[in-house]
Amino acid sequence: MTARPLERLYGIHPILEALRAADRQFDGIYLQQGRKGREVEEILRLSRNQRIRLDFRPREALDRMAGSSHHQGAVGMVAAKPYVSLDDILQAASREKAPLLLILDGIEDPHNLGAILRTAEAAGTHGVILPERRAIGLTATVAKASAGAIEYLPVARVTNLSRTIERLRDANFWIYALDVKGTQNYLAVDYTGPIALVIGGEGRGVRPLVADHCDGRVHIPMSGRVASLNASVAAGILLYEVLRQRARGATLMPGGTE
Amino acid sequence: MTARPLERLYGIHPILEALRAADRQFDGIYLQQGRKGREVEEILRLSRNQRIRLDFRPREALDRMAGSSHHQGAVGMVAAKPYVSLDDILQAASREKAPLLLILDGIEDPHNLGAILRTAEAAGTHGVILPERRAIGLTATVAKASAGAIEYLPVARVTNLSRTIERLRDANFWIYALDVKGTQNYLAVDYTGPIALVIGGEGRGVRPLVADHCDGRVHIPMSGRVASLNASVAAGILLYEVLRQRARGATLMPGGTE
Repeated sequence: MTARPLERLYGIHPILEALRAADRQFDGIYLQQGRKGREVEEILRLSRNQRIRLDFRPREALDRMAGSSHHQGAVGMVAAKPYVSLDDILQAASREKAPLLLILDGIEDPHNLGAILRTAEAAGTHGVILPERRAIGLTATVAKASAGAIEYLPVARVTNLSRTIERLRDANFWIYALDVKGTQNYLAVDYTGPIALVIGGEGRGVRPLVADHCDGRVHIPMSGRVASLNASVAAGILLYEVLRQRARGATLMPGGTE
Repeated sequence: MTARPLERLYGIHPILEALRAADRQFDGIYLQQGRKGREVEEILRLSRNQRIRLDFRPREALDRMAGSSHHQGAVGMVAAKPYVSLDDILQAASREKAPLLLILDGIEDPHNLGAILRTAEAAGTHGVILPERRAIGLTATVAKASAGAIEYLPVARVTNLSRTIERLRDANFWIYALDVKGTQNYLAVDYTGPIALVIGGEGRGVRPLVADHCDGRVHIPMSGRVASLNASVAAGILLYEVLRQRARGATLMPGGTE
């Protein structure tokens, strides 16, 4: 168990020091609307250099985030666990006979992300890749919902998922997007080689541009009247189909598509 | 889409009228501590007859439940959808070649229950059985988390799960409990006949007395370091293994156990 940094850091100076040292991973920094000055300028500059999301918010919003009014107009949301780099994940994967990676395209609910990371760790996934934008990161709520899994599972954040998928393809991965509009039944695909699975965010699924870069789009058949499964349940069903095939060699559905 | 009753009913008279008419399904009734009188006596008597859970709580707790202080010392939590009877479920199941039922032994988190009902409906489950005690019922939060599935899925509540399992066995069901301590790999069981699956509550799993009444206890293998899967994810993996086997005929793991 690695030491876990605070979820929130507040105060102009503590945040500035953390940015200068570059020793903490921020999921975002929030400054009070109207706040100006030399130190604010430096926070803006360092955040931009380190690709940290920065927003201005009203004082009351910052009070809520900090859980205190002693924030001096600056609150930083700190990752509950450091991210690894995509290179780290690819290097670790290269040592596996059949690496298994999970790419999450825009999960926004912390309980869903936690449950997915918990399942991914239990299924022996070698790494998880998140986009930097429009997705939740490794917050304290996610850490709790993951039941400890984020301590053991390498998670990377990338700026561009399509480019990441191309890099994975160059590394001999087969990449499949799970989508309600997927053309293949998820049982009809051979997952015994190096595989990366792309799971879409709640509601909107895998973005078309991301899906276009994949080798295939699979769906989980549904016989009821609800339109889709919960993202964490769908991820669990697909990950365990991969494991099932690997445990016994591929036994696919006849026909390949349905 | 059936009309959906209110989530909360409050006031001595509205609750008394609803109990007299027996036209609403209460998940529980809460009376203010110290409240007495003829009408309270009648609420107590009718709740007992209708097997509705009744508790006394401080005034402030009732204010919170009602979202108002105009509750006159009485708040009723109304099911977001009426339950069916176990007989209804068994009768509907008897018309299926291979009925599939889900028994939930003590799910307490509304989001988990909602996600399980959503998956159960998508997987074509013919009915879900909940215990009356120490488990959440069909609240408005569960309805929302189920993404509409509770409108289509028959759900029954029973007083005694062990007795229910014996009735299912008499009706030729095979009953399997999913448990981290299960002796059989979930992939090693034939689910092509009439099947009832028992899923345990968060944290404590299937109660030993309930598990003892089942035909077998299965587990989902985990290769990581986390101790268990989220209950709704585990239910999804097991339900979709049932569907996979039924779609292609059983192809079990060799050996039967691991």
